[in-house]
Amino acid sequence: MIIKIDCSDTKGLIFNITSVIYDFDLNIINNAEFVDEVTGHFYMRSEVEGSCDTAALKARLVANLAPGTNISIITKKQKDIVLFATKEYQCLGEMILRCIYKDLNARILAVISNREHLRKLVEKYDIPFHFIDHRELGRQEHEAAVNRQLEVYPADFLVLAKYMRILTPAFVARYRNRIINIHHSFLPAFKGANPYRQAFERGVKIIGATAHFVNDDLDEGPIIEQDVIRVDHAFTARAMSQAGKDVEKMVLARAMKLVCDDRVFIHGNKTIIF
Amino acid sequence: MIIKIDCSDTKGLIFNITSVIYDFDLNIINNAEFVDEVTGHFYMRSEVEGSCDTAALKARLVANLAPGTNISIITKKQKDIVLFATKEYQCLGEMILRCIYKDLNARILAVISNREHLRKLVEKYDIPFHFIDHRELGRQEHEAAVNRQLEVYPADFLVLAKYMRILTPAFVARYRNRIINIHHSFLPAFKGANPYRQAFERGVKIIGATAHFVNDDLDEGPIIEQDVIRVDHAFTARAMSQAGKDVEKMVLARAMKLVCDDRVFIHGNKTIIF
Amino acid sequence: MIIKIDCSDTKGLIFNITSVIYDFDLNIINNAEFVDEVTGHFYMRSEVEGSCDTAALKARLVANLAPGTNISIITKKQKDIVLFATKEYQCLGEMILRCIYKDLNARILAVISNREHLRKLVEKYDIPFHFIDHRELGRQEHEAAVNRQLEVYPADFLVLAKYMRILTPAFVARYRNRIINIHHSFLPAFKGANPYRQAFERGVKIIGATAHFVNDDLDEGPIIEQDVIRVDHAFTARAMSQAGKDVEKMVLARAMKLVCDDRVFIHGNKTIIF
Amino acid sequence: MIIKIDCSDTKGLIFNITSVIYDFDLNIINNAEFVDEVTGHFYMRSEVEGSCDTAALKARLVANLAPGTNISIITKKQKDIVLFATKEYQCLGEMILRCIYKDLNARILAVISNREHLRKLVEKYDIPFHFIDHRELGRQEHEAAVNRQLEVYPADFLVLAKYMRILTPAFVARYRNRIINIHHSFLPAFKGANPYRQAFERGVKIIGATAHFVNDDLDEGPIIEQDVIRVDHAFTARAMSQAGKDVEKMVLARAMKLVCDDRVFIHGNKTIIF
Repeated sequence: MIIKIDCSDTKGLIFNITSVIYDFDLNIINNAEFVDEVTGHFYMRSEVEGSCDTAALKARLVANLAPGTNISIITKKQKDIVLFATKEYQCLGEMILRCIYKDLNARILAVISNREHLRKLVEKYDIPFHFIDHRELGRQEHEAAVNRQLEVYPADFLVLAKYMRILTPAFVARYRNRIINIHHSFLPAFKGANPYRQAFERGVKIIGATAHFVNDDLDEGPIIEQDVIRVDHAFTARAMSQAGKDVEKMVLARAMKLVCDDRVFIHGNKTIIF
Repeated sequence: MIIKIDCSDTKGLIFNITSVIYDFDLNIINNAEFVDEVTGHFYMRSEVEGSCDTAALKARLVANLAPGTNISIITKKQKDIVLFATKEYQCLGEMILRCIYKDLNARILAVISNREHLRKLVEKYDIPFHFIDHRELGRQEHEAAVNRQLEVYPADFLVLAKYMRILTPAFVARYRNRIINIHHSFLPAFKGANPYRQAFERGVKIIGATAHFVNDDLDEGPIIEQDVIRVDHAFTARAMSQAGKDVEKMVLARAMKLVCDDRVFIHGNKTIIF
Repeated sequence: MIIKIDCSDTKGLIFNITSVIYDFDLNIINNAEFVDEVTGHFYMRSEVEGSCDTAALKARLVANLAPGTNISIITKKQKDIVLFATKEYQCLGEMILRCIYKDLNARILAVISNREHLRKLVEKYDIPFHFIDHRELGRQEHEAAVNRQLEVYPADFLVLAKYMRILTPAFVARYRNRIINIHHSFLPAFKGANPYRQAFERGVKIIGATAHFVNDDLDEGPIIEQDVIRVDHAFTARAMSQAGKDVEKMVLARAMKLVCDDRVFIHGNKTIIF
Repeated sequence: MIIKIDCSDTKGLIFNITSVIYDFDLNIINNAEFVDEVTGHFYMRSEVEGSCDTAALKARLVANLAPGTNISIITKKQKDIVLFATKEYQCLGEMILRCIYKDLNARILAVISNREHLRKLVEKYDIPFHFIDHRELGRQEHEAAVNRQLEVYPADFLVLAKYMRILTPAFVARYRNRIINIHHSFLPAFKGANPYRQAFERGVKIIGATAHFVNDDLDEGPIIEQDVIRVDHAFTARAMSQAGKDVEKMVLARAMKLVCDDRVFIHGNKTIIF
């Protein structure tokens, strides 16, 4: 069981919370806290062993802690996800293999794509593949179709595994803090389209990838994970794109592991990760 | 004030310890715990604000915790160190500049060397430089002379900043857990002499450096920090050595920062670092 | 077309070789040379555009260069490989996806395994899977069975993608410089069995993986590629193993790209890579 | 002796150039070429042994190659540099130690600063320190004073080692391709002032540094070298700044090594580095 708590910092919080955990006869096997000295906000994640009435535990924590405290008691280990992709197989293939072989504690309910390219890959693993063509539809109509499809799949998270479509604020708001995107640059460098082209034109010596939650503004949500690789003058924009895919998929995989293991707090535009 | 505690794990430890901290009206601004699931050992480091009778605090913690618990209450912020070096300036220069400009919370009491090469560099900063020649002395005589010199300087830590001498078990035992060495390889690869030569002969694609506490066996003590850089076929042993010095000095500097900030626990042949 | 030449260094070699290339009306689009200053050996790889009688080109190069010069003129772009695996899917899955989607210029002729675990994964992609059980056979009998199977598949390279069997010198000699292995440590640290267990016991702060050609001595052949990731005290041997698999598969994939793009020269126990 | 040539690519260039080198009885000990497939531009750097009439060599190369070809024959090994700094010691100290101990093949003619803070450090090494206060002067007056001082020191390169002043286009134009700056971010992310503050506000997981030639637009010149380090939610802007200084100084040191070893070509807004 994982207990996640965040609230304004006051003296005695760890003592207060661990006293409740102790009273419920739970054993802490992993604990992490953080106080943001700028915002004065406190975060704590406890991994505990033992069984208890989780409703009673939550009630006791609510009673003991200040109003406005966020308390999550998480007993569901495996997350349900829906993957979105377009043409590139790398991130999608990575996610599928990791889920199938339990390296990632998530179950893929379905894959939604605005192209047919990846159907064959997805269906090999008996995962439903839904092609929702965008070419004859306005953006809102297309998203309406996507939303209808998503109603069939009650996902914890939507994972944009190189989904080459811009989402509307309405769509994003509907799944607040539940959409994860992989952007193929080291944000905030090279926002928007064709980041490898931009990187090539700028002559950078390092390229990267960023996994982040999607908020209203494109490429602006809380960053979960980033990584980079070295390039040099011999890399064309295409070669950067090829090399970059290795980083993209690993960054997305690591970010999703953090998310699925309930290690991520979101606060404003930032993440706190234990 | 920093409180470091380690002991066998039992239920309620964090609750128990933080209740004492709370009773003494101290505010935890930074806290970290770890339970080693193999050894069943518990480690906790708390950075607290507020003032109290530290003897009373310690007594209370001793009373509350099982016999055999290690408890350190650290109020001395700046560590006193003696540096050892031979001919290479990189690690030594790095340590001097960081200490002088307070990037590292340590005061250099003196530099001891078995060569004269670095005297000029050291004395520029008004740091005592002691040349203790080894060439006419047996190993024990030389160490006796070093020990006599060290009596003048009551150091918290001895830092071997590319000191090209092997220490006897007796010397090492005298300063148990207080000697830090930088080894110019990615241990346990390439123990012993000439690691860059060994790396060159083996044709590795990455070389590294390791900062570790020195125990009886050379190059075998608890590792504090390691890092690597890429090399290729074009690197001669000499070029590896040149490139490697960049890693050595950064690894030593980072390790010493962890040590001076009281972030390191030693347990057997391993470190736990918060 | 790729031209690879290596020989003892003498004055005028680049001039000599490029004059032949020029005479055959070929355009160099990519060129790299290296002179090993220790061995005095010269290496050159030219990627050229244009068509010519390659036998005549080779004859002219042979005539122009000293006896004993190694000259390869490579027109076959796609390599044929046979993969070996045991139970772990990561390296195998990575290789399959990269080959299927042409990120790696290789065709997988078959997968040979001493276990049945990975059959389902392999057969999804219509790749022949051969289970050759080792449990009832002596080492030589097992290898004889493997050799019989390999006769069906004239592979350029055998790729040991976490194949948990030790090969005999006879087997290795038969496929000299054609077997690539991924070892799950940063060689030469932690040779042999259970490297993550060894790394855990030693308390290292970085773990790695090594792709290398297999020679007579296990884990001793020419290294093609290596990489590392950071770990800390919180990693058990099992957690290191999980984290390490990410490095293993990327290192193997990068090594195989270098090999399949004909970028690797082997000289004694080392590689020269352009 | 180093020969650097760049021109439009045509068939036979390497042959043509190496034939001249061969005719002058020079031995190539290191050679590198690159053809930019987008611009069709060819670059070559040869390190040669042997002595010759360099004027004759240049004349022959000019005669053999197309008009407009850039040809540099470099025999001056040690570069003369002037360092600019403000208050931070890290980059300046790194440059001084590397030059003094010949890890960097450069001689520091002087240090110019708009503050007095670093005088003591600089004068320890008997390097002239010129304090040119900007507080009573307009930007152009201040630069005029700097220019007057620079006339005393005929430097090959001006190195901005955390010089916290914006240069005018006129100043930059005067030392075209001869000013190197270290910017404390992973450009093009976080241009302008306070990049660590910007990085903190954005919640990035990696910060970096960029060494680049200075052109008209601030933080926009050709990038020579970049590197990054990981940060997390626990890093304040100040902690990022502290950690970032380690990257800054190493990136500047590596960039200056490339520049001083004549390994850098500038083409438009990019560098080609051998």
